[in-house]
Amino acid sequence: MGKIPCAILGATGMVGSRFVHALHDHPWFSIEILAGSEGSTGSTLRKASVAARDLHLPNSILDAVMVPPDPDAIVEAGIGVVFSSMPADVAGPIETRLAQAGVAVFSNAGSHRYDPHVPILVPEINPTHMGLLGEAESVFGGGFIICNSNCTTSGVVMAMAPLVKWGIEEVNIASYQALSGAGLKGPAAIDMMGNVLPHISGEEGKVRLETLKILGSFKDRDVHPAPFAVNATCVRVPTAHGHLLVLQARIRDELDEQDLRRALHNFTGVPQQLGLPTAPGKPIIARPEDDRPQPRLDLNAGGPGRAEGMAVTVGRLRVEGDRVRMVALVHNLMRGAAGGSVLNAELAHAYKYI
Amino acid sequence: MGKIPCAILGATGMVGSRFVHALHDHPWFSIEILAGSEGSTGSTLRKASVAARDLHLPNSILDAVMVPPDPDAIVEAGIGVVFSSMPADVAGPIETRLAQAGVAVFSNAGSHRYDPHVPILVPEINPTHMGLLGEAESVFGGGFIICNSNCTTSGVVMAMAPLVKWGIEEVNIASYQALSGAGLKGPAAIDMMGNVLPHISGEEGKVRLETLKILGSFKDRDVHPAPFAVNATCVRVPTAHGHLLVLQARIRDELDEQDLRRALHNFTGVPQQLGLPTAPGKPIIARPEDDRPQPRLDLNAGGPGRAEGMAVTVGRLRVEGDRVRMVALVHNLMRGAAGGSVLNAELAHAYKYI
Amino acid sequence: MGKIPCAILGATGMVGSRFVHALHDHPWFSIEILAGSEGSTGSTLRKASVAARDLHLPNSILDAVMVPPDPDAIVEAGIGVVFSSMPADVAGPIETRLAQAGVAVFSNAGSHRYDPHVPILVPEINPTHMGLLGEAESVFGGGFIICNSNCTTSGVVMAMAPLVKWGIEEVNIASYQALSGAGLKGPAAIDMMGNVLPHISGEEGKVRLETLKILGSFKDRDVHPAPFAVNATCVRVPTAHGHLLVLQARIRDELDEQDLRRALHNFTGVPQQLGLPTAPGKPIIARPEDDRPQPRLDLNAGGPGRAEGMAVTVGRLRVEGDRVRMVALVHNLMRGAAGGSVLNAELAHAYKYI
Amino acid sequence: MGKIPCAILGATGMVGSRFVHALHDHPWFSIEILAGSEGSTGSTLRKASVAARDLHLPNSILDAVMVPPDPDAIVEAGIGVVFSSMPADVAGPIETRLAQAGVAVFSNAGSHRYDPHVPILVPEINPTHMGLLGEAESVFGGGFIICNSNCTTSGVVMAMAPLVKWGIEEVNIASYQALSGAGLKGPAAIDMMGNVLPHISGEEGKVRLETLKILGSFKDRDVHPAPFAVNATCVRVPTAHGHLLVLQARIRDELDEQDLRRALHNFTGVPQQLGLPTAPGKPIIARPEDDRPQPRLDLNAGGPGRAEGMAVTVGRLRVEGDRVRMVALVHNLMRGAAGGSVLNAELAHAYKYI
Repeated sequence: MGKIPCAILGATGMVGSRFVHALHDHPWFSIEILAGSEGSTGSTLRKASVAARDLHLPNSILDAVMVPPDPDAIVEAGIGVVFSSMPADVAGPIETRLAQAGVAVFSNAGSHRYDPHVPILVPEINPTHMGLLGEAESVFGGGFIICNSNCTTSGVVMAMAPLVKWGIEEVNIASYQALSGAGLKGPAAIDMMGNVLPHISGEEGKVRLETLKILGSFKDRDVHPAPFAVNATCVRVPTAHGHLLVLQARIRDELDEQDLRRALHNFTGVPQQLGLPTAPGKPIIARPEDDRPQPRLDLNAGGPGRAEGMAVTVGRLRVEGDRVRMVALVHNLMRGAAGGSVLNAELAHAYKYI
Repeated sequence: MGKIPCAILGATGMVGSRFVHALHDHPWFSIEILAGSEGSTGSTLRKASVAARDLHLPNSILDAVMVPPDPDAIVEAGIGVVFSSMPADVAGPIETRLAQAGVAVFSNAGSHRYDPHVPILVPEINPTHMGLLGEAESVFGGGFIICNSNCTTSGVVMAMAPLVKWGIEEVNIASYQALSGAGLKGPAAIDMMGNVLPHISGEEGKVRLETLKILGSFKDRDVHPAPFAVNATCVRVPTAHGHLLVLQARIRDELDEQDLRRALHNFTGVPQQLGLPTAPGKPIIARPEDDRPQPRLDLNAGGPGRAEGMAVTVGRLRVEGDRVRMVALVHNLMRGAAGGSVLNAELAHAYKYI
Repeated sequence: MGKIPCAILGATGMVGSRFVHALHDHPWFSIEILAGSEGSTGSTLRKASVAARDLHLPNSILDAVMVPPDPDAIVEAGIGVVFSSMPADVAGPIETRLAQAGVAVFSNAGSHRYDPHVPILVPEINPTHMGLLGEAESVFGGGFIICNSNCTTSGVVMAMAPLVKWGIEEVNIASYQALSGAGLKGPAAIDMMGNVLPHISGEEGKVRLETLKILGSFKDRDVHPAPFAVNATCVRVPTAHGHLLVLQARIRDELDEQDLRRALHNFTGVPQQLGLPTAPGKPIIARPEDDRPQPRLDLNAGGPGRAEGMAVTVGRLRVEGDRVRMVALVHNLMRGAAGGSVLNAELAHAYKYI
Repeated sequence: MGKIPCAILGATGMVGSRFVHALHDHPWFSIEILAGSEGSTGSTLRKASVAARDLHLPNSILDAVMVPPDPDAIVEAGIGVVFSSMPADVAGPIETRLAQAGVAVFSNAGSHRYDPHVPILVPEINPTHMGLLGEAESVFGGGFIICNSNCTTSGVVMAMAPLVKWGIEEVNIASYQALSGAGLKGPAAIDMMGNVLPHISGEEGKVRLETLKILGSFKDRDVHPAPFAVNATCVRVPTAHGHLLVLQARIRDELDEQDLRRALHNFTGVPQQLGLPTAPGKPIIARPEDDRPQPRLDLNAGGPGRAEGMAVTVGRLRVEGDRVRMVALVHNLMRGAAGGSVLNAELAHAYKYI
């Protein structure tokens, strides 16, 4: 019924299966093509994807047959919208080829995040960054890449965005990252048994660069990165889903705890105004309890329904002098990955880019 | 053969059983009295203490019969040294009474940590704080309380002490605290399954006050708290033992990563000079690997032997401008509790206070 | 709208909160009274129940005020149906009093399971046992107690019921029981960290007696326990929900693996015929994969919707001589507790007992 | 000083690092060669072996350089004793070649366990099976392979051996197997989080065949497998080390619980009589408590010292008619792997085979 046909590339992984889940009954998009790695070609999603097993998908989609991620075949098939959760090492050239052929690519891969014409989009925060895509006439209908951020970054920017008006001068982060952030082949169980790992390769640099790009300002057809310092120490902990973040920001202008709570509670954006299908009613849930957020209790904030896992929960709000402290939780596979890109596509559709 | 007879009060708990383990074959002290709560009186340690079960203690000590924590009976029995790991709500008056009666009390309880004549002693860091006890003649032989710090604080101060010479201006901490820090009746397993809890009651205030007292300077017969800011967000994670700490300090004078590594690696103190029985060869182990420290691999640093769990392991050293960052791991029951107090008693003995 | 008003006694616990969840939007029942322990009286469910926090209940029910479990007040309020998940030590007399006053009691408590006029009902298996309640005229409209089984038993009997026709001569069980089966105050996290506990107090006797009563035959107005041997070794493992069971049965008549698979797959009962609201389409899901069932993947079998967690999943089917082996998984809080009792009430309503 | 030089093949894995640990300070053997896979050649053990990191080995052994597992080079180097924990797919021909060249091979690999001239040796149980090696003159000095059993089997046979005299007619096993049994590349943490896996590839067949061979009788120069039925369902649970087993045996002759307890408690064998270095004082620890054995508390039974993890702990002893039930725990890497093979070598040495 007039839905926009789309393809999912990298459909078998931890994020890919969430793309499938989010899109298989989407009101605006219909899945036409599922592509995986070479190894999965010709197999059904059911067989090819361990990750899909948890998600209670209908048989019709589990029985879909995987194809290779061939950009030309996708273009030939008349697909104008692609969601990509391919591994970074293969995503780059395929996404480029698709965009060049006029396809709108919504990507969870890191390959193009720092490209000059690619926004790292969080619709509540920086919709103006879509200006990076170029002149309207050249991109309307497709031919661009829009990235969502790294999963950890998505929690940082959502919790920090309401503070921008008081002037952020520095952000420090210690993370408690869930296992699903490492994908299907993450740490071995024996290594995580009663243990935490104080390093996640490449993550801290991504959090820094992406946070500054997302919270940067769009001027003169370019994004000017935010000018403050961002430092993260990223730690893997034995939780399944949901990255918890201990955040401390140094703020230029005076605010008190009441101001902070109100700013977080009242934060809203374009997705809420437009009522996008995957937008949570409130993008930030500010909880008053001392012992929240918790991965177990707050993972799916934003739901029930399509926006499950799309709200970031914050708690333990404290203001002391120029320091603001809080704890935030983001669903790393939803707001932090597949859900984020689906919301990006919804915004692009609402804005007539697709 | 000339060992100093001692009593352990609160012997059945998580920390108490570590006192028993550390002291049952100690070269200087001999356990004469084991006291528990009312409920355990008359029972053997084996029966009264679930915590002792893990520690492979000899039958002779497991068959010892528990007595009540009666200070007068202890004094009458001629015991001059007491190790206390009683709950805070009962420890206060009992420890006071013992000290008044001339007993040397080494306490893991929080009751007296902020008393003006009680040092929070970490022998490698602040041995001069023993001056708080008063004039030598009045305390030699007993009649005082020496506290060890809270378990989390013990890791903070050990990692920060080598930085004091460059001028610490601020310390920020995010903790990843193990379950044994909550005692035998800690969080229920169902609540910790794949979860973290972003609050530990009272902990953050303790870390702040104790860090400043321990790193304070002893002048004019008093401890002057260190003048910098300390902020902690304390989080419980599903590990058994070992508190991991993400630390960031702001430093006044310039230093580079090489300076930092050397300062941590070379840090040493009176216990090492005196060769105290429970002193680790190096109080700080600075590891070069990206993925260390880990609770699973570094918990028992300092050993093998009596000093197992007495060294703090640090890693992920980074210096950026005036910021120093690192990750530290402390064994919360050893350096952070029973082991710390035993080392305090060894120092007091070497200094002829007992 | 003509719904049957009911009360939930013991509403704040692990099972009680599942009763609330299953009944708050039930098509046939409406919750009128929520009762907890003395301590919770006057408090809202939100405050009184930690267990309710995970379940995403609407505010209207979370804001309901708890009353004491006073049977007379319940009767006076005109409540004819009570769901009970009170602790065994208080449930007994309260449930008796309610039944005497004409109330239909659906109980998860163990107090009355072996009473001569109380069936342990599993609607797919032994609906005829409702005959224990007595002559129709004396019980129609209320005045009886119907128990659901212990959580572990519920998985055993569901997996064994299809084998009855071949003659069961012996059942051996080794269980892998989840933490939620021990309630909110179950094992401490420190004791379950990388550990299993090879004993669950009282459980093995319950499994034996209840299995024989449920699989017994109703003749001459009485249940004659099944005549075979049942032996269980019950072990707690670190999973959150879902009891896994390794089952071995000795069978009198010959059958092969194909017979077994078919019998399990085709098993159905009165709830399916009547389309009861909480009945799963198939009460047993027989999976062909070697590595199923798993708690993580199969916990909610029967759903989505109201019957989530109401189907038992079986796998690893093997027949060797007179031995039948399989692995079964039951949701201990749903089919094994609250869901089971709700299904019992639905059957009682369909049969016009209420 | 007169120690027997030996090589360890497959030294970098989970079992190999235990070989290194058990042998690096052994009174009879000295490690001369450490061999790993192709990839590890030329690297130090420290670098090549993640598993060695946990074991607090001395620097001298951690700095040893790995060589390839070349049987000819080992023979040329004059090595007469080899411990093998290579993967099954490469172990077979290398072990054969070594034995043909006159080397005594003690293997944890499964490749040769069913060979007619290879015993699966458990020194307390079946020392007579060394007769399989052939005439004394042909094998004294080397030229044979002696296997230890699969890790799960080692617990089964130890717990069952004392029952042989009453006539075992059937053994049923449900296992709770630890992660280290799956090696360094075992299940991913995300798949084991609050989960159990009801299948371990190939394990159940091994348990059956090996149990029958080990408990078989040596007659006419051959081992005649024990004639009873063995059935196992093997399940992976989220513990680190230590396989727990729920065992049920059907017994021909009458015995009571007292007989059973005494038989287990008094069980002893040649290693105890000879005082072999790695022999535990008692090979079976029979615990009276309801809640034992537990992996956390009983893993290292047999120690402290060289025999840590070499005793099997049993508990929950029950006799009902002809059925005997118990729970057993075996350290899968020690008695169940490296420790078992080292004990085999000690017996071979005591018997002058090497």
